Amino acid sequence: MKIAVAGLGTVGAGTVKLLRQNADLLAQRCGRRLELMAVSARDRARDRGVDLKDLSWYDDPVRMVAEADADVVVELIGGSDGVAKTLIEAAFARGRHVVTANKALLAVHGTALARAAEAAGVALAFEAAVAGGIPIIKALREGLAGNRVNRVYGILNGTSNYILTNMRESGREFAEVLAEAQERGYAEADSDLDVDGIDAAHKLAILTSVAFGCEVMFDDVYVEGIRHVSPLDIEYAEELGYRIKLLGSTRLTEHGVEQRVHPCMVSLEAPIAHVEGVLNAVAAAGDFAGDTFYEGRGAGAGPTASAVVADLVDIARGRQIRTFAVPATELKKIPAAPMERHWGAYYIRLMVVDRPGVIADVAATLRDDQISMASMLQRGRAPNEDEAVSVVLVTHECEEAAMMHALAGIKRLDTVLEPPRMIRIEPL
Amino acid sequence: MKIAVAGLGTVGAGTVKLLRQNADLLAQRCGRRLELMAVSARDRARDRGVDLKDLSWYDDPVRMVAEADADVVVELIGGSDGVAKTLIEAAFARGRHVVTANKALLAVHGTALARAAEAAGVALAFEAAVAGGIPIIKALREGLAGNRVNRVYGILNGTSNYILTNMRESGREFAEVLAEAQERGYAEADSDLDVDGIDAAHKLAILTSVAFGCEVMFDDVYVEGIRHVSPLDIEYAEELGYRIKLLGSTRLTEHGVEQRVHPCMVSLEAPIAHVEGVLNAVAAAGDFAGDTFYEGRGAGAGPTASAVVADLVDIARGRQIRTFAVPATELKKIPAAPMERHWGAYYIRLMVVDRPGVIADVAATLRDDQISMASMLQRGRAPNEDEAVSVVLVTHECEEAAMMHALAGIKRLDTVLEPPRMIRIEPL
Repeated sequence: MKIAVAGLGTVGAGTVKLLRQNADLLAQRCGRRLELMAVSARDRARDRGVDLKDLSWYDDPVRMVAEADADVVVELIGGSDGVAKTLIEAAFARGRHVVTANKALLAVHGTALARAAEAAGVALAFEAAVAGGIPIIKALREGLAGNRVNRVYGILNGTSNYILTNMRESGREFAEVLAEAQERGYAEADSDLDVDGIDAAHKLAILTSVAFGCEVMFDDVYVEGIRHVSPLDIEYAEELGYRIKLLGSTRLTEHGVEQRVHPCMVSLEAPIAHVEGVLNAVAAAGDFAGDTFYEGRGAGAGPTASAVVADLVDIARGRQIRTFAVPATELKKIPAAPMERHWGAYYIRLMVVDRPGVIADVAATLRDDQISMASMLQRGRAPNEDEAVSVVLVTHECEEAAMMHALAGIKRLDTVLEPPRMIRIEPL
Repeated sequence: MKIAVAGLGTVGAGTVKLLRQNADLLAQRCGRRLELMAVSARDRARDRGVDLKDLSWYDDPVRMVAEADADVVVELIGGSDGVAKTLIEAAFARGRHVVTANKALLAVHGTALARAAEAAGVALAFEAAVAGGIPIIKALREGLAGNRVNRVYGILNGTSNYILTNMRESGREFAEVLAEAQERGYAEADSDLDVDGIDAAHKLAILTSVAFGCEVMFDDVYVEGIRHVSPLDIEYAEELGYRIKLLGSTRLTEHGVEQRVHPCMVSLEAPIAHVEGVLNAVAAAGDFAGDTFYEGRGAGAGPTASAVVADLVDIARGRQIRTFAVPATELKKIPAAPMERHWGAYYIRLMVVDRPGVIADVAATLRDDQISMASMLQRGRAPNEDEAVSVVLVTHECEEAAMMHALAGIKRLDTVLEPPRMIRIEPL
């Protein structure tokens, strides 16, 4: 099987290395050799630590698709539009299979691309787009194929998880930890997509389609990043038996598909609470299998190359792959559940004047929105009356709309000195 | 696709229920309907909670294979020989695919059956044989197909894990916890295969073949059950930062394949330490993917049916499956690494006379076998000199043969009152 690789960054170089290092093993597993024949990247001179001689080199990946006689094109350029999309469409037009790690592209154009692939009778495979070395797409599409899956959630962005872990361990602020992570190469120089939750949202939108057999609905993902998470919240979380994680969560509710990416309080009893550093993890519940849980390295040359090559092996073994588990023409249109209808418990941290009656005012505001308090925590007292002290409330489950209304009311109280901080509690 | 199910115990009934309840979903995912047409079991009158009318009933499963015109035969009878084996061979002879949950059969006859299946050009699929609802066979055979896998380990028996968890939580003895588990239905009346490690060894032998592409080597699995684990060891383990788990572990060493099932001390830092109750978990390391980890329910009607149907979906989707990832005729013969060559650290608990010089004697015996002590722990003192007190030693890594020799020497010391208890420490 002849393979052309477009894009020779970390993942591209890792894929070339894997195809060479494990070539004999792969040939045995596939029943035929996986032959890398052409590559394309911008800078031919750059040393990538892999031997590229004997390969056709193309500066232009779209030209590579047109001219190289590859059975499969591996797209590792990235980006939701532009050349990545152009070259994939060109591959379909020529009847080539496509393997990609491009989550942004699939999140934005997944439904259309799946239809195009199936119309062309070729595969569009993307194990590498979600959670790197964890074979989660295969687990959902095939391993749990007997199940009605109603919920999937996970830690889908290693950079954010690394930062939250480091904040907890060091007690330092977000900005400081991010700057250090960037300096040390654990975070990209431009890490907005990571820390603002967009990268996780891309992946979540893909998981949604595979799990529920519906069109990709990236625009409907509710997204909140980790910038506003403070060391104080992390400390309170531990005291309450929680850990703060940036989760992507998707589930079918009576209102439609609820897709959310935001910091969550997760119980220390749940395995996902202990997934630390750059690791990723995904939990999926099936009506027959029950809860299943998958953990591994979500990014980097090796894990992502492992996922790319798993797709190549599937194609080489002649396994027909439907992009999102069901025919693309049959992908359901499911309404998006509005975030206002989200139902859950909430953690609220307030900076209040330390004076009798303050909590009574806050509690009354919550009561007016039919929200019950489950617990309240005040650490120490202010040195003087009328000085600020932090108070933490945990509510019973309520609707997000009520919570938003209550938070607006609390914010207006004279005794509340800063905008309330709210973090959703995720039942696991 | 027409399906015949042999065996209507818990898993058989669960499979029938799943095929009915999720029939439309399955049809969409497979591109054709999965049509259950015939079943076979001993007692036709028994109420299994599923509707069996409209199905052909056979008292004799081998006759069902001969007479029912099924595309796939699902074998859920169990047992390493006898009717299960006969009917599978009959299915191959008639060119029928086989899906089975029978780990004992595959552990004992896996290589021969894989060859027979491939000679007949049909599938022999067995996701349900290992770790129930966790799609670990698929993960190893396909998800990690790009990797050279050198090590797989896991909690493969839910009953044993339930008992160890319960022993730790309640501080009670093995026999007492087992009896209660049997009374409550959490353990089989005859649970020897579970608590003596045989069931886990069956599963481990299968994982070995899938992971390393070698013949099934069940007879070479070193097996030790959990009967000798005491609440005292569990307590000491926690104090030392470990939890005791019955692990199945397989890896490629310089001496060959080392397959072991025995109680292990695993670090509380490792995710597998926190897999409690009846849950199963498997960890697999690939040369590119790095460490991956899978957790879920390992037994029961729902999870096992989920695995059976995942295999049916694969077959219905036309996906060719090689039993152990590579052609059965190419399965390697790898020597079995003798247990004497195992290399690891050890926990040793001794009941000794509480008198000066006792530890010096023990330490001297270890030294004579070139074994270094990493730590020593003596809890309290005996009320009177010369009374018994327990002492715990943790060694640095050494060879099993040296450890066995040292233990024999320690046992002979006058001051050591009971045979030493030894539990291996598993590096994770």
